[in-house]
This record gives sequence, C-alpha cells and structure tokens, in this order.
Amino acid sequence: MTCAVLSIGTELTRGELVNTNATWLSSALTDLGFDVVEEVVVDDDRMRIGAALERLGKAVRVIVCTGGLGPTTDDLTTDAVAAALGVKVVRDDASLDAIRRRIEKAGRALNPSNAKQADFPQGADILPNPVGTAPGFGVTIGGASAFFMPGVPREMQRMFEEHVVSRIRTLATPSTYQVRLRTYGLPESLVGDRLAGVEEAYPGVVIGYRVQFPEIEVKVLARSTSRESARELCDRATTEVRTRLADIVYGEVDDTFPGVVGREMRNAGLTLAIAESCTGGLVGHMLTREPGASDFLLVDAVTYANSAKTGLLGIDEEVIRGHGAVSSEVAAAMAEGVRRVSGADLALSLTGIAGPGGGTAQKPVGTVFIAIAAARGTTVVDKQFGGDRQQIQLAAAYAGLDLVRRACV
Amino acid sequence: MTCAVLSIGTELTRGELVNTNATWLSSALTDLGFDVVEEVVVDDDRMRIGAALERLGKAVRVIVCTGGLGPTTDDLTTDAVAAALGVKVVRDDASLDAIRRRIEKAGRALNPSNAKQADFPQGADILPNPVGTAPGFGVTIGGASAFFMPGVPREMQRMFEEHVVSRIRTLATPSTYQVRLRTYGLPESLVGDRLAGVEEAYPGVVIGYRVQFPEIEVKVLARSTSRESARELCDRATTEVRTRLADIVYGEVDDTFPGVVGREMRNAGLTLAIAESCTGGLVGHMLTREPGASDFLLVDAVTYANSAKTGLLGIDEEVIRGHGAVSSEVAAAMAEGVRRVSGADLALSLTGIAGPGGGTAQKPVGTVFIAIAAARGTTVVDKQFGGDRQQIQLAAAYAGLDLVRRACV
Repeated sequence: MTCAVLSIGTELTRGELVNTNATWLSSALTDLGFDVVEEVVVDDDRMRIGAALERLGKAVRVIVCTGGLGPTTDDLTTDAVAAALGVKVVRDDASLDAIRRRIEKAGRALNPSNAKQADFPQGADILPNPVGTAPGFGVTIGGASAFFMPGVPREMQRMFEEHVVSRIRTLATPSTYQVRLRTYGLPESLVGDRLAGVEEAYPGVVIGYRVQFPEIEVKVLARSTSRESARELCDRATTEVRTRLADIVYGEVDDTFPGVVGREMRNAGLTLAIAESCTGGLVGHMLTREPGASDFLLVDAVTYANSAKTGLLGIDEEVIRGHGAVSSEVAAAMAEGVRRVSGADLALSLTGIAGPGGGTAQKPVGTVFIAIAAARGTTVVDKQFGGDRQQIQLAAAYAGLDLVRRACV
Repeated sequence: MTCAVLSIGTELTRGELVNTNATWLSSALTDLGFDVVEEVVVDDDRMRIGAALERLGKAVRVIVCTGGLGPTTDDLTTDAVAAALGVKVVRDDASLDAIRRRIEKAGRALNPSNAKQADFPQGADILPNPVGTAPGFGVTIGGASAFFMPGVPREMQRMFEEHVVSRIRTLATPSTYQVRLRTYGLPESLVGDRLAGVEEAYPGVVIGYRVQFPEIEVKVLARSTSRESARELCDRATTEVRTRLADIVYGEVDDTFPGVVGREMRNAGLTLAIAESCTGGLVGHMLTREPGASDFLLVDAVTYANSAKTGLLGIDEEVIRGHGAVSSEVAAAMAEGVRRVSGADLALSLTGIAGPGGGTAQKPVGTVFIAIAAARGTTVVDKQFGGDRQQIQLAAAYAGLDLVRRACV
C-alpha cells in the first residue's frame, strides 16, 4: 500500500529546519507496512500546497501531512485543503471550546488567532490534539485518505499514534518486524565490528545503526512473508545481537540511559548524591528529567567556583591549591564531601575541563576526573573526551552515570 | 528564480536517515537568491525518479538532486535521467581513468561496480568529485538546469560549492533579506497578534514564526528587486517588529537565552547562586552549556530532598513542615540560604511540582515558586505551567532565568 508524506513550511524550504517529522513519519509508516514512495516539502503557499495534494491524491492511497495548522497568518493548510476540495472552511464549536479551556487554564483569554485553529474544511474528520492547541483533521483527496497534523514534533507524534494509526492500520499488511536496542560504551565502528556476519547468518535481517551521541542505537529489521514470521526471524537475530553486545546494551527503544540508572538505584534501594563541576548540573538534569528521581536522589551540588567546593562540600583549600580543581584528589574530595553532607549511600563527582578554554599541556580540554564514593571507599577514574564543550559535558555525564549504574549491581 | 531539491534513496523514504542534504542545499540556494519552492524525496525506483524529474522540469528553473550515483544495484539515477531525456548511457573515459587512479591509490583494483560510476547520460556536463569516487553531472530537463550529485553529504557539499554554484549563480539575483529575532515571554498567538498589520504596512515583507518551546522565533523576510533594497526594507520592518515586541525580544538568531543572561550578568559584574528543586539542575545546565559561566556562576545547589534543603542551605525544618517544600516561604528560604552560603550577589531558587505525580487541589502539577534574593531583599513569584514534566521544567527554568536577566538591568 503506497503512501506519501507532505511537509508544509517555508522554514523547511528555506533550509532553516531539518525535516525530522518526515523521517519519523516515514519510519512509523514503514513499520505499519506501508510503502512510502514520496516525501514532499512545499513552502507556505496556498497554490503549491493545493497542487501537491491534488497530485498525491492521484498517486497514493494515504497522505500524511504536517505543518501550517498554527494560529498565525503563515499557517495556510486548512484554507488550501478546503480550496482543493471545493468546500468551505467552517468553525467547529467543540474544538473551539477545547481550545478555550486549554488557553484559560493557562491563565489567558482566547483571541481570534487561537480561534482560527478551530476552523476545518467542511466535512473533515477532526483529530484531537492530546498535547497542544491545534487539532488535526482527515479528509479524502482524490483516491487518498489524507491526514493533517501540526508541525510541532511532539504534538504530531502523539496525534499520529493516538488518532491516525487506528484509521489507516487496516490498509496495509505489515511484513516486517524491528527491534531497536540502545547501547552505551562503544563507538559505532566497533559496534559494527562486533556484529559482522549477523546479516549473512540470518537472511532477511538488516542491521542498522543510529548515532545519538554518545549512544548507538542498533536496529534489527527482519523482512518476511508475514508479520509473524518476520517477528520470529527478528527475535532469533536479536538474541544473537544481544549476546554479542551484552556489556553495552542497556535497554530497548523506549528506555533512556538515566531512566535505567534510576531504576537500578531504586531496585538496589540506594540513595545518591552528586557533586558536579564541569558538567554544571547536566547529570542532575538527566536524572530528574524522568519522573521518580526523588526516590533516590538527595542532592546535586554544582560547585562551579572553588569557593563553593570548599564552602559547601568542606574540601580543604590546600587540596585544591596543591593539585588543582581538576584533579583526582579534588574529584575524590568532592564525592566524599557531598556524601558526608547529604548522608547518601553513594556519591558521584565530576571535575574537568569542558573547554573551549582552560586546557593545559598536562590537562588538555576534555580531561575529566570522575569519582564514586561509597561506604567501601572511593574510586576515581580519569577520562579524556573529544569533541566540543557540549559533547565533552555529555560524554562525561554518561560516563558518570555508567559508574553509578555499575556500582548498583 | 524558482528551484527544487530532489533527494533519491529508499533509506530516506523508509525513515532510516534524516534528510540533512535537502536542508543544507535549501539553505545554500536561498542564500544565492533562489526560491526553493519544493523539496522532493523519492525511493530508488526508476519510474518515480523519472516522473519527479519530468514534473519538476516543467515547474522550476533549477533542480538540484542528490543520491543514487553509487556503485551498487540500487543506484539508478543515471539510468533514470537518461530514460527521461531519451538518450543513451555512455561511459566517459576521462572519468573512468580518474576513478581507476583513485581506487588504485587506495590499494584496490577497479571492478565493474566502480566502472559504472563513469557512466553518464549522453551529452551530460560532468561535474568532478573533489573528495570521492562518483562524479556528478548536469543536464537540461524541460525548462530546468538539473544537477546530480552523490548523497554523501561531504562529497555533495564540495561538489555543489566548487562546480554547481558557478553554473547557476547568474540565474538568480539575491533579492531577499531576512532577520531572525528570538523572543521569550509570550505564546505564538499573542506574538502574532502584536504583529498584526506589519505585513500590510511593509509590502514585500513576510513574517514567519517558529516555536522552539518556550521560545518563539520571529522571522522578518523581505523580498525586493535587489539584495540591497531587500535589506533596507527588512531593516525598516524589523525596527517596527522590535518596537512592538520590545519586552520579549532577547536577541537574534545566534543568541541563546541562557547566553544572553550570562552576558548581562557579566556586564553587570554580578555573581549568581542557584538553588533548584523541581528543575533538578536544568538551570545550571543551561547556563554552563555555554562557555564562560565560571565568570559569574558560583554554585547551583540542587536540593532535591528536604534533608538537603535543611542541611546544605540551612533552611529551618519548621518552615518546610509548616508550608510544604513547594511554597513561597521555602522558595524564599532557598534563595536566601544559597545566597548566604555562597556569598553571591544574586540568588535564584525554584521549587515546584513537575509531575506527573505529586499534585494536589491547592498545588496542582505545574505549580512553581521562583524566588530572587539580593542585597535589597527577596521577591517570590508563583507560576502555573502547563504541559508534561519536561515542559514544566523547561518553562520554569526559562522563567527563573528571565527573572535573573531582569534583575541585572
């Protein structure tokens, strides 16, 4: 079953924004068993939006469209669809009420721009927006079922999953199955080396890699004659992949690295304290972005200035003066200090040089000392990370969380 | 002058790869003065490649195409172009020699797959590849000059810059100019309301909006007869836009909100301390992601547990017991406490309920108290944010940073 993805927005055709929506939708549609034969992007131009829809309506059976449903004057999708269908734009009272409630809940009053988001081509099938203001809608254009969703990725994804999938699922027969494994600890080329020969051993299986620094996602995609046999093939190949990558696979697609660390802290019944310097709060942020961090996280002392290291964590000034703030000794003292002041079971500290300035011959940019303090003592590792400031901070935060994770088990 | 970008590859239509080539090319073509009216992606299918080319050859004056020039059987671009033009595919001896030299230099022998990369539609204008094996080529399709380049981003970019730009530059007159303003503080619909009538008052100007929660980027694009007059028009309209949005514009495209806050702290010569609870380190992370935070940031105490609030910041247990950890009183005590222990000029604190659990009737999920403590006293604001946990955290962090920014001036 053929389908197409249409993205609307001058920010795309001017090259100001990477079109991740088309990638996400194409991947989701492929998983459902559709053949995505074309992705199209047009600018915010009523005629071109209409022309693209008329053309695709003759070429494919499903069109999934994003963008141009916002409240401002450059949002033209609804008008363009109505014109292409030769129907009027009408206001939907139920949608208007929902928008008004949402806006009043945020302490504001409905204005005419918001109200525009309750307008739809006459006869459209309205798709509620679970996480935003603008509803989507479905219509029939030529021989195609066409669905229109907002361009905000989060809103689009939820709307697609909750309201579009159920409307199109029966049109396609899925004959592929994919498992996505999340790994941390090896670069892409070494992950690839470990998996050499898997595709040949399991005909019909394709291994894909996606770098989400510093993680590598490994995709095991199986194609067969039915969804069931594809799944069976995928499961066998995935078992092989998991065996070869045992030390670096931390979960599947919906897991996050800090989420898994939190789960293991919770399972171990341990409390955690953190003292950060070069990572500036990133480790705490990663852990608390997920719900439930209060089960184990007591404190994260981002002691950026030396005065904070001495004042808050009680580190001896002499240790900082003698070894430098970026040193094994200070990392150990930070972890022990934050463990002492918080009473936590386990303490993690990070001190290093994230750059771009501050590097020396002995301690170049990318040098990071990471310490773990526990009742049984303190261990310090020193790392040398590459990349820019944000990559060094992220690599250090992952390395620190990895030590916490391994200390739990 | 209109143009289109065509990307060829089943890895794109299956959603396995984000199409950064189209973004890069659209941006480069826009800068050259072209109107990119469409981006198209088709899978590795001879008929669909040909159909897309024939259609675009009638619609635009320049087509820039990537992908499908590789050595494998799924690389079909050359064949498809020749078929669309009704010409033969012919081997180019000079290109074959260059490919052979390149491959032999790498210590391998030329094989038939490599040789295929020296095949071109008869009469094509060959574009050398400065950094890879596959040359590109140019042909005329319908009314368009069409250029075909490899899909490897690095090879494509070099080929475009060294061999395509010189062939198309004279076709377009740069006649647009754009300014991108970054705003924080109002939702998109209210920003749009404030700018009602600007497009009418400045004919040739189009206002665009892009949501990057919780920011709104406002783009002022001017089209005129020359780059100079477009710039002049854009400047006049931008002055009007800046006046209307004076309280929410914090910078231009390359600025970041935490970067501007840091710059203003530095200009004011003030030091900052932070105490975070519900935002869990996000404020510190945002400030330290940028270089130079050590100029002003002393400490960020992420006091997640109540024991940390009392232990690290010296907050009276009775205050927490009496008012709850999420309260105006505790926010004030956190800011005053972290200011006292750090000796900072200015202190920011945030305590709230990021959810999804923990809300009550009096203090629902999204309730956040934010305090600023300074020598002249302490002020607390209470906010009610919508959205999920991560949006509430981000909205709270921005609101806190905004208070810091306003306290500097």
